[in-house]
Amino acid sequence: MDHGDHLYALLLAGGKGTRFWPLSREDHPKQLLKLFSDRTLVEETYDRIRALIPNDRVLVATSKGLATRLTALFADIPERNFIVEPVPRNTAPCIAVAAQRILERDKDAIIAVLPSDHFVTDRAAFLEVMGAAVTHAARGRIVTLGITPTHPETGYGYVRFGEFEQDPEHPETRHRARHIQAFVEKPDHATALSYLKAGRYLWNSGIFVFRADVIIEKVKAHLPGLHDGVTTLSGLAPDRANAAAIERVWVEMPDISIDYGVMEKAEGLCVIPASFGWSDVGTWRALTSFPTDDAENFVLGKVVNVDSHGNVLYSSHGLLATLGLRNMVVVVTRGAVLVCPADRTQDVKALVEELKQRDMTEYL
Amino acid sequence: MDHGDHLYALLLAGGKGTRFWPLSREDHPKQLLKLFSDRTLVEETYDRIRALIPNDRVLVATSKGLATRLTALFADIPERNFIVEPVPRNTAPCIAVAAQRILERDKDAIIAVLPSDHFVTDRAAFLEVMGAAVTHAARGRIVTLGITPTHPETGYGYVRFGEFEQDPEHPETRHRARHIQAFVEKPDHATALSYLKAGRYLWNSGIFVFRADVIIEKVKAHLPGLHDGVTTLSGLAPDRANAAAIERVWVEMPDISIDYGVMEKAEGLCVIPASFGWSDVGTWRALTSFPTDDAENFVLGKVVNVDSHGNVLYSSHGLLATLGLRNMVVVVTRGAVLVCPADRTQDVKALVEELKQRDMTEYL
Repeated sequence: MDHGDHLYALLLAGGKGTRFWPLSREDHPKQLLKLFSDRTLVEETYDRIRALIPNDRVLVATSKGLATRLTALFADIPERNFIVEPVPRNTAPCIAVAAQRILERDKDAIIAVLPSDHFVTDRAAFLEVMGAAVTHAARGRIVTLGITPTHPETGYGYVRFGEFEQDPEHPETRHRARHIQAFVEKPDHATALSYLKAGRYLWNSGIFVFRADVIIEKVKAHLPGLHDGVTTLSGLAPDRANAAAIERVWVEMPDISIDYGVMEKAEGLCVIPASFGWSDVGTWRALTSFPTDDAENFVLGKVVNVDSHGNVLYSSHGLLATLGLRNMVVVVTRGAVLVCPADRTQDVKALVEELKQRDMTEYL
Repeated sequence: MDHGDHLYALLLAGGKGTRFWPLSREDHPKQLLKLFSDRTLVEETYDRIRALIPNDRVLVATSKGLATRLTALFADIPERNFIVEPVPRNTAPCIAVAAQRILERDKDAIIAVLPSDHFVTDRAAFLEVMGAAVTHAARGRIVTLGITPTHPETGYGYVRFGEFEQDPEHPETRHRARHIQAFVEKPDHATALSYLKAGRYLWNSGIFVFRADVIIEKVKAHLPGLHDGVTTLSGLAPDRANAAAIERVWVEMPDISIDYGVMEKAEGLCVIPASFGWSDVGTWRALTSFPTDDAENFVLGKVVNVDSHGNVLYSSHGLLATLGLRNMVVVVTRGAVLVCPADRTQDVKALVEELKQRDMTEYL
């Protein structure tokens, strides 16, 4: 069987978040930003997977507020492939709902779950690892991609791996899977350093590949309430007449991530160690890892930088001029400008809170 | 004789300059900025002197490009009091032309020459010192105000003083004048430090007070070519019919400052040491001396600063938000944003040169 014909992608595009304020606003989250090209992050995610998966097998899970923009952005994706959450829940509900819907289309379906706001440098390497992951998923394994750490990052969760998986079909594959011993939370710096030295920890990329029937079984086992909701929804055609009924089901769904609700409890998970220049682009600082000029600056937009090194310099609105800057983040948008040292960008959330406190809602 | 009835002010308002880029632009120099109130610096200069001098005895020297805006700003100053340089020259020509014009009105005139882009914290103290300066000027002395240094500033010229002036009329005045031994150029840091320790050096404020006839004599003695030009001009009514002839005279005027062309060569100059919270506001950094909040920030416009100290934070256009900033200058204007460390603001000129080189003239 050619697994490729049964391969589906689920883009998780419902996230909101303010860590990229002032570029990201409440109605303009990270996945809709153009940080690396003239394509938004969610479009780049779609572009990346299209060599493996045709447009009618790409599903998009998103929120009510973003649905219109996403359907416009992906005019080539059939409307039935959009899963619109009437109320914000975490990843487990939308993945389960998507898996059920796909399963009803294709009992042999394999699903690649892709966060839509990450960045990948080496697309060819990414596709190669995805191919390997699909092979393991076809055998009934839940596969996650684990990124080989390049530095003691404290902003990511980690996966600790064990022995190699037995793979009778592909004993010689370059991308052999490992048993997962544990998912571990974001560490402090010392712990992250010990993970790096130990060599048995990978960054949890949030990219999963599994058979639709397998994940539904796991949901049934570990989140029976969610499974009930999914079953109820599958009897309701996603049209306007059922909108109220559908919303009632969603309201009852548990607000839980797939990692916490299923993956950390399930057995038989495996991880494929990979290196394809991945980042979850969690804060402005993350962009310092992708410099665009000789002075190690990440520069986007109309910027003149004199004697400035290691900065993130972004302007979507007018000229940004810098002089003698080191390791700073400067973001110029229409109506709002952010300036902070790169090592403080995790606190942008606090700054946004401050704006809320001051009732400066026009800037949120 | 009450000197006050013969007292005139000459506001030097022709300067251009880009050290306050992007707030100052080529057509919007420093004297037209509102840095400390809702009045421009040139208006504040006017306000400051008005307790001593009525509007019809205030003259304004400026350039062709700024004349329209200045006459609009000072609608209460008679049109004949504006001296518009057809071509940019330095301070000696416009002071000499103004002195000649005033002398023809009032043979006993005393003139206070006031740079229009400086800042004074203590207006009452300023007026008191000016009063003392007028007394000395009436006796035929050329008086300059010297500011008692508060730190080893390298951005100002200095005046080295000698003995007290003999002032038979006011032996007990609080503001006794000193002989000037020398004008000295902007020093390096070590030299500035030695000046501070020596206690015989004052900052050259560029504020002069003298009798009109006395300065004309000095110009005749030290800049005879300029004196010829002034004499020729005095025969030409400043109206449209004479415009071409007037411009021809100005073109021939020496491009020289009053300090270099007259003061450094003349004898019998005196200086009154003064402390009235003076700054020439030479660069953005100068504003750090006038903090507006508890965290030693100079803040103007819509700014939210979290954990930020010792910065200059200015926004004329939208919200500026800062986080964890130290000793930085951030200036947000319509269409252009500047970010640099406070100790680099003297290089803003170089940045503006860079913009010129790149033909980004829309930002100049």
